[in-house]
Amino acid sequence: MDYMVFTIFLAATVGAGATGAMFPTGSWYARLAKPSWTPPNWMFPIMWTTIYLLIAFAGARVAGLPGSGYALAFWAMQIAFNTLWTPIFFGLRRLKGALLVMAALWVAVAGATITHFQVDFWAGLAFVPYLVWVSIAGALNFTVWRLNPNEPVLRISEL
Amino acid sequence: MDYMVFTIFLAATVGAGATGAMFPTGSWYARLAKPSWTPPNWMFPIMWTTIYLLIAFAGARVAGLPGSGYALAFWAMQIAFNTLWTPIFFGLRRLKGALLVMAALWVAVAGATITHFQVDFWAGLAFVPYLVWVSIAGALNFTVWRLNPNEPVLRISEL
Repeated sequence: MDYMVFTIFLAATVGAGATGAMFPTGSWYARLAKPSWTPPNWMFPIMWTTIYLLIAFAGARVAGLPGSGYALAFWAMQIAFNTLWTPIFFGLRRLKGALLVMAALWVAVAGATITHFQVDFWAGLAFVPYLVWVSIAGALNFTVWRLNPNEPVLRISEL
Repeated sequence: MDYMVFTIFLAATVGAGATGAMFPTGSWYARLAKPSWTPPNWMFPIMWTTIYLLIAFAGARVAGLPGSGYALAFWAMQIAFNTLWTPIFFGLRRLKGALLVMAALWVAVAGATITHFQVDFWAGLAFVPYLVWVSIAGALNFTVWRLNPNEPVLRISEL
């Protein structure tokens, strides 16, 4: 594994993870109706940090290997939708819009998991916690959307 | 070139480009002090659509080729910071924060341009308009930050 390639992939995840610091949860999220199984707030940064390290490792394992085209295209797709989700949910407060982003993210992560496995076993395995977590996050986004049907979106462009 | 790989890279750019639709410019941007050479609003979606098509082509050209590791790591890094910029600038109205994101984006695009050239001439060439445009966008972000030193940021988490 090339450590410089790992570092560049990790830089990509820092860009995605910056959304969590820039768009913090705050009182709006605290007062939303949420299901009983909602993970506590402290669990999110721990999970994301672990996932980001694992997928940077996965990307660095497969990058440049023969047949890695699909794996790296899905890697790029997942980091774009990962970066997009937080500003849509916590910035615009668009619960349904965030769910659509989450659906695209789930497809990208599922695609990345399968195609990383096809190139390298350890790279594929490194994507599995991400796929599990994004499934939980998707179920949480869906449930929050259903529990808060009249939650107004934040019209930033009108402020 | 594998058209399915092209489509997945293009899906990544759709995620990045969605920020432009979700965080529109609006009256806040209109009343910011801007330099005389600011491109007109209509030029931005045209430039970004062109750039997104070109870089999806570039990614699909090099993905899976021997020695493409750096190129695809930089491809992933640029799309993350590209997605991040718009919510920071138009969502949080953090002119200086957006400039830091732009600096990381510029490094990622410069890295992607060089490393795509190393693998495939046409892929490298396809990144050149992006590097030019992100240099202009960076200069614009810098100038807008300097021209509007007292512009308050939008504290979404307090709303």
